[in-house]
Amino acid sequence: MLDPLFKPRSVAIIGASNNPLSIGHIIIQNLIDHGFKGPIFPVNPKNPYIKSFKAYKSVLDIPDEVDLVNISIKNTLVPMAIEECGKKGVKFVIVHTAGFKEVGGEGEALEKQMVEIAHKYGMRVYGPNSQGIQNSDEDVSVYANFTFVPMTQGNISILAQSGGVGEVLKLHLDKIGMGIRMYASYGNECDVSMNEILEYYGQDDGAKVIMLHIETLKDPIGFLEIARKISKIKPVLAVKSGKTKEGLKAVSSHTGTLMEKDVTTDVIFRKAGVIRFDTQDEMIQTAIALSSQPEPKGNRVAIVTNTGGPGILAVDECIQAGLELAHLTDDTKAFLKERLMPMASLENPVDVIATAGPEHYGAAIEGLMNDPNVDSILINFISAPFVDLDGIAATIAEWGPKATKPIVVVLMTIEKWGRLLRTIRKGGIPVYEFPETGAKVLINMTRYGLYRHAAETEFPKMDVKKADVDKLFGGLGEGYISQADAFAALDAYGIPTVKMIKASGEAEIKSAAKDLSFPVVLKVDAKEIVHKSDEGGIALNLKDKDELIAAWKVMDKKFSKHNPAYVVQEQLGEAVETIIGVNNTEGIGPIIMFGLGGIFVEVMKDVQFRLCPLSRGDADGMIADIRGQAILEGVRGKAGADVESLKDILLRISQLAMDHPRILEMDLNPVFSFAPGKGSKVVDIRIRLAGK
Amino acid sequence: MLDPLFKPRSVAIIGASNNPLSIGHIIIQNLIDHGFKGPIFPVNPKNPYIKSFKAYKSVLDIPDEVDLVNISIKNTLVPMAIEECGKKGVKFVIVHTAGFKEVGGEGEALEKQMVEIAHKYGMRVYGPNSQGIQNSDEDVSVYANFTFVPMTQGNISILAQSGGVGEVLKLHLDKIGMGIRMYASYGNECDVSMNEILEYYGQDDGAKVIMLHIETLKDPIGFLEIARKISKIKPVLAVKSGKTKEGLKAVSSHTGTLMEKDVTTDVIFRKAGVIRFDTQDEMIQTAIALSSQPEPKGNRVAIVTNTGGPGILAVDECIQAGLELAHLTDDTKAFLKERLMPMASLENPVDVIATAGPEHYGAAIEGLMNDPNVDSILINFISAPFVDLDGIAATIAEWGPKATKPIVVVLMTIEKWGRLLRTIRKGGIPVYEFPETGAKVLINMTRYGLYRHAAETEFPKMDVKKADVDKLFGGLGEGYISQADAFAALDAYGIPTVKMIKASGEAEIKSAAKDLSFPVVLKVDAKEIVHKSDEGGIALNLKDKDELIAAWKVMDKKFSKHNPAYVVQEQLGEAVETIIGVNNTEGIGPIIMFGLGGIFVEVMKDVQFRLCPLSRGDADGMIADIRGQAILEGVRGKAGADVESLKDILLRISQLAMDHPRILEMDLNPVFSFAPGKGSKVVDIRIRLAGK
Repeated sequence: MLDPLFKPRSVAIIGASNNPLSIGHIIIQNLIDHGFKGPIFPVNPKNPYIKSFKAYKSVLDIPDEVDLVNISIKNTLVPMAIEECGKKGVKFVIVHTAGFKEVGGEGEALEKQMVEIAHKYGMRVYGPNSQGIQNSDEDVSVYANFTFVPMTQGNISILAQSGGVGEVLKLHLDKIGMGIRMYASYGNECDVSMNEILEYYGQDDGAKVIMLHIETLKDPIGFLEIARKISKIKPVLAVKSGKTKEGLKAVSSHTGTLMEKDVTTDVIFRKAGVIRFDTQDEMIQTAIALSSQPEPKGNRVAIVTNTGGPGILAVDECIQAGLELAHLTDDTKAFLKERLMPMASLENPVDVIATAGPEHYGAAIEGLMNDPNVDSILINFISAPFVDLDGIAATIAEWGPKATKPIVVVLMTIEKWGRLLRTIRKGGIPVYEFPETGAKVLINMTRYGLYRHAAETEFPKMDVKKADVDKLFGGLGEGYISQADAFAALDAYGIPTVKMIKASGEAEIKSAAKDLSFPVVLKVDAKEIVHKSDEGGIALNLKDKDELIAAWKVMDKKFSKHNPAYVVQEQLGEAVETIIGVNNTEGIGPIIMFGLGGIFVEVMKDVQFRLCPLSRGDADGMIADIRGQAILEGVRGKAGADVESLKDILLRISQLAMDHPRILEMDLNPVFSFAPGKGSKVVDIRIRLAGK
Repeated sequence: MLDPLFKPRSVAIIGASNNPLSIGHIIIQNLIDHGFKGPIFPVNPKNPYIKSFKAYKSVLDIPDEVDLVNISIKNTLVPMAIEECGKKGVKFVIVHTAGFKEVGGEGEALEKQMVEIAHKYGMRVYGPNSQGIQNSDEDVSVYANFTFVPMTQGNISILAQSGGVGEVLKLHLDKIGMGIRMYASYGNECDVSMNEILEYYGQDDGAKVIMLHIETLKDPIGFLEIARKISKIKPVLAVKSGKTKEGLKAVSSHTGTLMEKDVTTDVIFRKAGVIRFDTQDEMIQTAIALSSQPEPKGNRVAIVTNTGGPGILAVDECIQAGLELAHLTDDTKAFLKERLMPMASLENPVDVIATAGPEHYGAAIEGLMNDPNVDSILINFISAPFVDLDGIAATIAEWGPKATKPIVVVLMTIEKWGRLLRTIRKGGIPVYEFPETGAKVLINMTRYGLYRHAAETEFPKMDVKKADVDKLFGGLGEGYISQADAFAALDAYGIPTVKMIKASGEAEIKSAAKDLSFPVVLKVDAKEIVHKSDEGGIALNLKDKDELIAAWKVMDKKFSKHNPAYVVQEQLGEAVETIIGVNNTEGIGPIIMFGLGGIFVEVMKDVQFRLCPLSRGDADGMIADIRGQAILEGVRGKAGADVESLKDILLRISQLAMDHPRILEMDLNPVFSFAPGKGSKVVDIRIRLAGK
């Protein structure tokens, strides 16, 4: 429990100082300025008073109990201070000092030593190299942090790996008069972890929204489990910096090479229901809306406007953001016709016209709030000087607390009418400067709404022969396995494969020819030959036995040094070429990929990734979200693909990867998918295993 | 000349009133509030005084000369008022009143009548249904407009088709303390046109940047000519609303159906050097920067930051926006090493660290300003409370006037340090809240910089036989022409086509077989059969004469009712399939399209459009900008395309379309492009002509 950290009854400061630029001084000042509710105990070996507080030479001299100690002294002195805190019975220490693990060597040793001492006394360490914590709860009001943005009460909690970014998030909220709930920038995570804090925020009823800034996830799977639970209750929003390629176990597979732009974070966030943002701005604007407004259940927006031109731009920007214009019901139109002015437009966007007064705005909001075709409302309000502006703002504000669908306002006004903005915000309705921002916020709220209202996820268990694969892999060492073995593994998992016969030498090739109907395909099968197609190890469309034998002779000459096996396969008919892959990523587990084959993968990088295990919804989404989706549906008179069988294969591959963690990578490439109802077949596969 | 409109020496108001909510009143108030430099003459038939000014019963009673008259009386009374203005010798009238062409019928007739009367007296009409004009020039200071955003002096001129959008643009500038130069929202354009005003802004030295809001271009080619001249001197920025499909002359061609999302505006803006924006916000932020900072010559940005986390986010957002991180020279690094603090990072982003003072910021800016590898500078400045913030702001501001590359600042601070923002802005350096905004502004400035510094455009004249095509088309009527005729037109323009022989009946087919080397392709050729491939009118890969005759017999049976001709073509080798098309768009002229064939066009809509005539730069850009560019370069071991011959074909097709305006549409589909140096060939073509 982190209560003594975020709700300390008393705080001591080791490194307290009268120098106003020192961390020890700034923290005392912040505690005083924000009215900390408990006693403050400066610790300073020389000065008997710090900022009018009695100071103590050691934490051991403090006459009362101490929950939390902030430490900002030289790094080498920290372990001794920790020892004293332990003896004193302190619950948590926050180490602001830098010069630990992040500098390596001696620093790393110091950090380890510090944690060992603390744990000896059952004490926890936050940091080091950390900014601190804040909690605006009026019963506590603790600002144990050395930064500068004033703290006011609010219901958005912030957890930031970079203190700088955390500060920026706070200051943008402060700038528009929004407070925060709790704040933490946790530094090196030597003991108290990011995941623990996130879990704590999740349990805090005072936090309606959580904002994260992440650079690296130290324990991604722990994060996934915690974030997943929380995001069903309240929104978790995140920006992650450094969107660059990450270190993967292997990049020899297609799947691996396509895993750019930190796919790992994407798949974890997606599975956890964490809404990811590219920019801080968009995250903050969305957090503000979610902190007071319900999330929409769909993406159908209705727009209320009092001017034509800006109304059209708002429509453009809503559609660009991914929203749809709601089709209003006849009931709504009849209601609006009765209540709005004669010149008003009763279609969406509802133009109440420039001379509309409070009663017209009220009617427009009421009509749209009751329309079952509307998921969210955007009000585009330009302050025309000839109407009752204050009345309009008050009417909009009244709807804040009773809204059953989110309302956002785009207010276009000048300084002297700034009070309109404050009035609307007081009603809990977010106000933006540009329709673009309002539209983006609504689409982001919708992303969360769809996640939250989705059915609980189940990971289907398919009927497979796991033991067969256990046995098969049991006999295999590290590295690529033969194609025949790989096909056997797929067979055991009920994954349809092209009909094929393994053969070595001319006699077996000839015999194989008997059991297949021509035309056939001949492929070489040896671990050493990885890119078969490029190396001339595949012969297609062999029409009869003679052509087959001739092709085999060519390959036999070329590859004789590897003494390879061969595979004879049936030649398949017209199909959509797809690719399915798995990359077992360190610390995260198998990530599965789906894409359209050939150029779509190579040039367009049109692929989808998900973290295993897959739910049916995951499999649906992987297929629905690729850009070349139309190919699967059939274009240019073609029949398209059998999407259902592809989903089934994805689920089975996910299970294969989960059941057998020795699978480092798999490329099913190509997987041929025939017309709807005609199934799909894996044509070629490569599997690489870890050592036993 | 629009001087009497934008620089009137005196203004009369017909419809002047003491009712503070009337347009006639608000305009007088706006003129007074902004200190109009000339006399104001209210015209009112009843009241002898309006707002303490002597009022006149008729404009004819005014004792002095009147340059400009604002009219806001009932629509039916306007023509008589115009007549009086004409008699008085007024130069310009602004008609605010609505109820003219936009309502049709009688209104349309009134509008026509109004213009006729005015022109009889050599007087010009602005509007009707218009907001008015403004000019902040201190010698004039005219606010002949009935809206509410206060006017201060600035150097950005605004021209808005929607008065509502115009107002929003003004208020966002006002909000951050920026003024404007001139403003116009021109309503119905019955006489004074948008293009005239644009040209006038272009000649006005007081305007450094022009912002446009456009819904429809009334005279696109006129706009193109004017905007093109201006944008070589000063930036012209535009938002256009209603990004929906536009009316085209024909949509039966591939090219036509792909012309979604108002391609016509895009091609005109591109040719005119007008920088288009999706959102008002981005346009305004870019205008602010361009109004005081030089445009960059390339996209290599250097970042100065005083914190790690926000610095990383700034890097992400610059790269996402399309900028590149500049590689600093060794000289720069040495300079920075000498001048910055020991802990500072000397690579890009340059982290001056949190404790940096004014001298360190100054050194960082100086170093980057002198580095030849740097095109622009983004300063990421978070207000750490323990340094000389005012000094830092002043140092940055000093660089404003002497910057040879643009500087933008992302300032992250709180209310109490708002003066920092004002200090930096006073230096002419734009300040943004988020790195994302700064990055987007820099990339938009770069778009302008690249246009402005590009060599003057030439439209190459290829050596072609225009007269041959004149003769050919002279014998043809409206509609699709035969393939043989289309090929003849291409031949005359030096465009390589597949070798083919036209043939009818078995004897000619047999004879054609003699002149071509097998394999060959047989195609039916009749106007009625538009989708040959779908209708079974193409037989590929015919190996010998017998196969050819057999294929012909099948088609002959199928198509006998059309009594068609046939074409026998050589079968081509491996090539990249591309598509080139032309759509002759009403009021604009031929728009040319290039894309990769097949799925890239059908599914990915991966095509580029340009307005004819093409420059060499246009042809280069069309090919460089498609997303599937890698296909042309060669992927998966393939040789790729002969890009030079594709460019040559594009230029020749552009010339064909320009020389023969009867060409309504052309689809060259496919155009096979062979390996580099091996040329390209048009395989199939459809041309549709207008009537003679």
